[in-house]
Amino acid sequence: MVDREIRVGIIGATGYGGGELVRLLSRHPRAKVVGLQSRGRDGEPIAASQPHLAATGLAIADDLPDRLDAVFLGLPHGVAAELVPGLVERGVTAIDLGPDFRLHDPADYPRWYGFEHPRADLLERAVYGLPELHRSELAALRDASVRIVASPGCYATAAILALAPLARAGLLDDVVIDAKSGVSGAGREAKPELQFSEVNESVRAYAVGGHRHVAEIEQELLALGGGSLAPGGSLAPVDFVPHLIPMTRGILATCHIRPPREVSQAELDELYAEAYGGEPFVESSTVPPATKHVLGSNAFRFHVRLDARTGRVLVLGVLDNLVKGAAGQAIQAFNVAFGLPETAGLEQLPLAP
Amino acid sequence: MVDREIRVGIIGATGYGGGELVRLLSRHPRAKVVGLQSRGRDGEPIAASQPHLAATGLAIADDLPDRLDAVFLGLPHGVAAELVPGLVERGVTAIDLGPDFRLHDPADYPRWYGFEHPRADLLERAVYGLPELHRSELAALRDASVRIVASPGCYATAAILALAPLARAGLLDDVVIDAKSGVSGAGREAKPELQFSEVNESVRAYAVGGHRHVAEIEQELLALGGGSLAPGGSLAPVDFVPHLIPMTRGILATCHIRPPREVSQAELDELYAEAYGGEPFVESSTVPPATKHVLGSNAFRFHVRLDARTGRVLVLGVLDNLVKGAAGQAIQAFNVAFGLPETAGLEQLPLAP
Amino acid sequence: MVDREIRVGIIGATGYGGGELVRLLSRHPRAKVVGLQSRGRDGEPIAASQPHLAATGLAIADDLPDRLDAVFLGLPHGVAAELVPGLVERGVTAIDLGPDFRLHDPADYPRWYGFEHPRADLLERAVYGLPELHRSELAALRDASVRIVASPGCYATAAILALAPLARAGLLDDVVIDAKSGVSGAGREAKPELQFSEVNESVRAYAVGGHRHVAEIEQELLALGGGSLAPGGSLAPVDFVPHLIPMTRGILATCHIRPPREVSQAELDELYAEAYGGEPFVESSTVPPATKHVLGSNAFRFHVRLDARTGRVLVLGVLDNLVKGAAGQAIQAFNVAFGLPETAGLEQLPLAP
Amino acid sequence: MVDREIRVGIIGATGYGGGELVRLLSRHPRAKVVGLQSRGRDGEPIAASQPHLAATGLAIADDLPDRLDAVFLGLPHGVAAELVPGLVERGVTAIDLGPDFRLHDPADYPRWYGFEHPRADLLERAVYGLPELHRSELAALRDASVRIVASPGCYATAAILALAPLARAGLLDDVVIDAKSGVSGAGREAKPELQFSEVNESVRAYAVGGHRHVAEIEQELLALGGGSLAPGGSLAPVDFVPHLIPMTRGILATCHIRPPREVSQAELDELYAEAYGGEPFVESSTVPPATKHVLGSNAFRFHVRLDARTGRVLVLGVLDNLVKGAAGQAIQAFNVAFGLPETAGLEQLPLAP
Repeated sequence: MVDREIRVGIIGATGYGGGELVRLLSRHPRAKVVGLQSRGRDGEPIAASQPHLAATGLAIADDLPDRLDAVFLGLPHGVAAELVPGLVERGVTAIDLGPDFRLHDPADYPRWYGFEHPRADLLERAVYGLPELHRSELAALRDASVRIVASPGCYATAAILALAPLARAGLLDDVVIDAKSGVSGAGREAKPELQFSEVNESVRAYAVGGHRHVAEIEQELLALGGGSLAPGGSLAPVDFVPHLIPMTRGILATCHIRPPREVSQAELDELYAEAYGGEPFVESSTVPPATKHVLGSNAFRFHVRLDARTGRVLVLGVLDNLVKGAAGQAIQAFNVAFGLPETAGLEQLPLAP
Repeated sequence: MVDREIRVGIIGATGYGGGELVRLLSRHPRAKVVGLQSRGRDGEPIAASQPHLAATGLAIADDLPDRLDAVFLGLPHGVAAELVPGLVERGVTAIDLGPDFRLHDPADYPRWYGFEHPRADLLERAVYGLPELHRSELAALRDASVRIVASPGCYATAAILALAPLARAGLLDDVVIDAKSGVSGAGREAKPELQFSEVNESVRAYAVGGHRHVAEIEQELLALGGGSLAPGGSLAPVDFVPHLIPMTRGILATCHIRPPREVSQAELDELYAEAYGGEPFVESSTVPPATKHVLGSNAFRFHVRLDARTGRVLVLGVLDNLVKGAAGQAIQAFNVAFGLPETAGLEQLPLAP
Repeated sequence: MVDREIRVGIIGATGYGGGELVRLLSRHPRAKVVGLQSRGRDGEPIAASQPHLAATGLAIADDLPDRLDAVFLGLPHGVAAELVPGLVERGVTAIDLGPDFRLHDPADYPRWYGFEHPRADLLERAVYGLPELHRSELAALRDASVRIVASPGCYATAAILALAPLARAGLLDDVVIDAKSGVSGAGREAKPELQFSEVNESVRAYAVGGHRHVAEIEQELLALGGGSLAPGGSLAPVDFVPHLIPMTRGILATCHIRPPREVSQAELDELYAEAYGGEPFVESSTVPPATKHVLGSNAFRFHVRLDARTGRVLVLGVLDNLVKGAAGQAIQAFNVAFGLPETAGLEQLPLAP
Repeated sequence: MVDREIRVGIIGATGYGGGELVRLLSRHPRAKVVGLQSRGRDGEPIAASQPHLAATGLAIADDLPDRLDAVFLGLPHGVAAELVPGLVERGVTAIDLGPDFRLHDPADYPRWYGFEHPRADLLERAVYGLPELHRSELAALRDASVRIVASPGCYATAAILALAPLARAGLLDDVVIDAKSGVSGAGREAKPELQFSEVNESVRAYAVGGHRHVAEIEQELLALGGGSLAPGGSLAPVDFVPHLIPMTRGILATCHIRPPREVSQAELDELYAEAYGGEPFVESSTVPPATKHVLGSNAFRFHVRLDARTGRVLVLGVLDNLVKGAAGQAIQAFNVAFGLPETAGLEQLPLAP
């Protein structure tokens, strides 16, 4: 990778994830935002839809420029599946913040997302863009002919990072992931149930019939555990229940695990230290972490604890759903894929209080 | 019970639970608030500490009047244990919103609350004031010589009501209760971690080492299940993790259960209909309930659902922690104990949005 | 008025104002809700749109019953103007929560609301339903052939009650009303700018070009002042700027006045005591009142203060925009118009914290 | 100024302003944080009090290192007045975020802050650190023997920037500043009235008897207007009323002005364009700005509008009280005082939603 600026475009720049991409990439030391796309807004300054980004002076255009190194896509599911093939054929690195390339098994798309994947052949070539688990695959994209980064879902990032060390150690069993998310995770489209007056001073579970992120959580945990996750030789289905919290940003994944054998706190601490000791964006916490303490940053912060009374293991993981759970993580993967320092453009500290 | 007014006093009237007692009892059709007590505030109008209650015209006094039928106590743990004996000896019905008489086993007090109970002899005479489970015992207080209602904890109310039908049916196993509470549950004392700027836009778990309400949850569930709750003949310790939500009121108990045998949705529906069909304050919901939809009312609303994919049962229960989780429930028990209509003074509908 | 139940219907029952009407009227000691109407929802239980009102068991119907004493209307402007004439011709008392009958001058409708009023003849027969100012006119409706109550706007209620004593005393000059409102005042329709993620952690002014409530504020203040409000013999236009606050309910009107002559705090106190001493829903506060302290109740609470340094008068007034600013006030006027105790059905104390 | 790192210390690092100083200065391209001080916390990692800043690895010490170029002070009023003299005598540039050096007239300290200033001689040598008004004085500090930057108050920054162009043009009269602030402005000390449950879902005015920031607002506006601000040749006292908003960060100053002569929108636009055209942190907005759109950034955003109906001018100004209203502005002034690019370390875009 030569030391020149990397020309990036953003498709879906007017959504919440898109806004974060603009915020972070427009201050990235090596990336240059050369195009923003969003349907039906040709010529509109970004400030019209993202007033906080007025200072960038950027504007939407119907078409991205021809010369592009990478394109970030923040689109409803099913749309990126149509656009990405054309991009990668032009040699552009596609970094998709949606789910269209996250699942390896084509059968999962009709099952979880309700559409037949038009390019099932590309699914095995896409890299699940969680650098903490797939760093070398991301780095190998530089030499690949097809370059697709499937950036993980926000809940999936929190859950997988919280549980990966246990999965690798064969300690995952009877997994309950009780997740809490701020409202921005639901996207920007106006919906009656997301109006302030409905969300404020209230909490509720949703998607109790099975949230789509379960598919990628199980895929990744199973891969880590080599089929030995549960007594029966396979990962029992994960019990995942998300909740809507009256806040804008943040995810807390509360993971309740009953390990298949006795473990000690020291063993847990060692497993996590080993897994995450050198990770630039993973932080251990001696107390239950608050989402506020990672707000606006690319950090994932966790707390792992053996409950001596119940014999269960509790793992708490927090992140900012729009940063480590979306735009920030996509940029982290982009950095790896382009051979840049992994933290480039992501050094901001969290904003608190 | 003759049809006269019932003279009630409130000790601890300046706290949040105390405020709710004043709000509800001052509009109760049969109760008359004849005294408010709160340390060091003799003569102070209630409006000084509870500005919203100015219209009651009530004031604090150092001493309650001699003639009293019932006293409600909202006090830190350990304090009511000292006061209640004197009250009941005078023939007053004591309704304690704190934990001092909830646990039957005296050994639980040093273990969970850090104090030796000074009157262990009274523990077995106190009635756990959850009318849905102990209605007849509450009614029998009228003829008892010692009349103590131990009003349940807010989390405990939500968890026990959510799980009681399963406990009775021997279907409780592998219980994870992931609970979410508004901040008012932490009481009114100023604490740095409860300042607005710390709580707002944030969510976190707390008391992960074991919240005190676990003791009463296990006590009540075990009693319901007759010792057959788990394969081994006893209730496995409940995994209970509470969370602080950026809202003032409301509790959501998300209960994840792996039943010891296969169950159907129809069986679950029937169990809950049977348990709660005639209950004035228990409402079934076909969708995951929001805490906002019971705000300010004495309702407990639940949703029970079999997850066919995982074989687990999910029970979601919501209530207002200061009403059904505190003052409202105490009044409900008071109504039963005094032979009044159970809903007297508690007919208000929830306040939404 | 005989001592029988009063049969009331509610049109627009699925909105926020409509929900409050159902909440309060379904517990009103004399009113009986006999019909709920809302376009396109025939047969739907009220719980479908107002989950918190499930316990009422009420349902929507396309048509209201024939036998009705009063109808409350919560509709977009321009719609009630079409419906009310038919109702009053049938002898029904119409209580309109919208603006269609608030302004006496027909020319104000095209100017402020953009429509020609279809029944300008009825405007002078409608009573502006602020009982504190128009109690006797409301009471006189019982003997009137046309019975229309034009229930005041939420901002207007706060501003007029805050300023009426000064207007009467000829002390209003140079009026700046800087108002703050919770989001529920904007109604229930889903709008992008009212999504939680947009409103939360933010404050902004809106309608800076002239909010419609200015019309009724000026109309009522001018009427009180008999044309002598300002040095020039007329009321100078009121400078009214509303703001959106990240909360659901509540209005605070901060009124900055430069009185045309010197006044003392004692004179101010006396003016307000005289105006509001006997009012059941108006409360004086010795400190700046918080909206939270009237939440859910029909109270208006104010604080009046001379700023000795600037010579200006500050009046702060708070209310719950959906109760005293909408449904509660409409019921208060209904009580007066039907000869009931003015506080019937409105005795609930505020809900705090 | 040579191109070396500038060694800075922070006194009061555990407060909210202090946290922001650490957040921004630890990522500043030229400053190096060499010491953090906070009473009674010697040796404590910054993460103990500021969990979001764990990644800095910094720790508190009782003493700052000897070699220091600049010290930022975030302290209660009266404390910096004692510390700053010693610092400046050692040749250190003192940047005080508190009020102790903001007012030029020593008599203002007993009047507004209740203490006699111990070093009144230094008041005239301190520079009021609003770079948009005092840039050249700040730049001149490099050659001064006494170097004190008195960083403006949060409300004062918003109000002065909103009104300066009008003040200069002699258009300020009858000034009402109705200000709204998030809770973090009240500091970090635990107070009952700032607990989440008290602030949430509520709005109220406070300090209605005269907020201390009035002193600096009047000082600066008067200086700009050269004594001709009002018809009588002096600035009439400003009517300033602050409000507490249920949000953590952000200030909106709503300024209502009645200009002493007729003005046009075009004239207003021109005045503001002239004043702020080249300012890196001042942004004009064509719509009423929301505090959320400057959150976390050093931007001040304004909207100026003639209300043709009333003849009044409305100026709305928003900023983040902890950034442009505190730490960010202090760093901006530091940049100017040390001859660095004014935007160094302050390029972050706002965080929204």
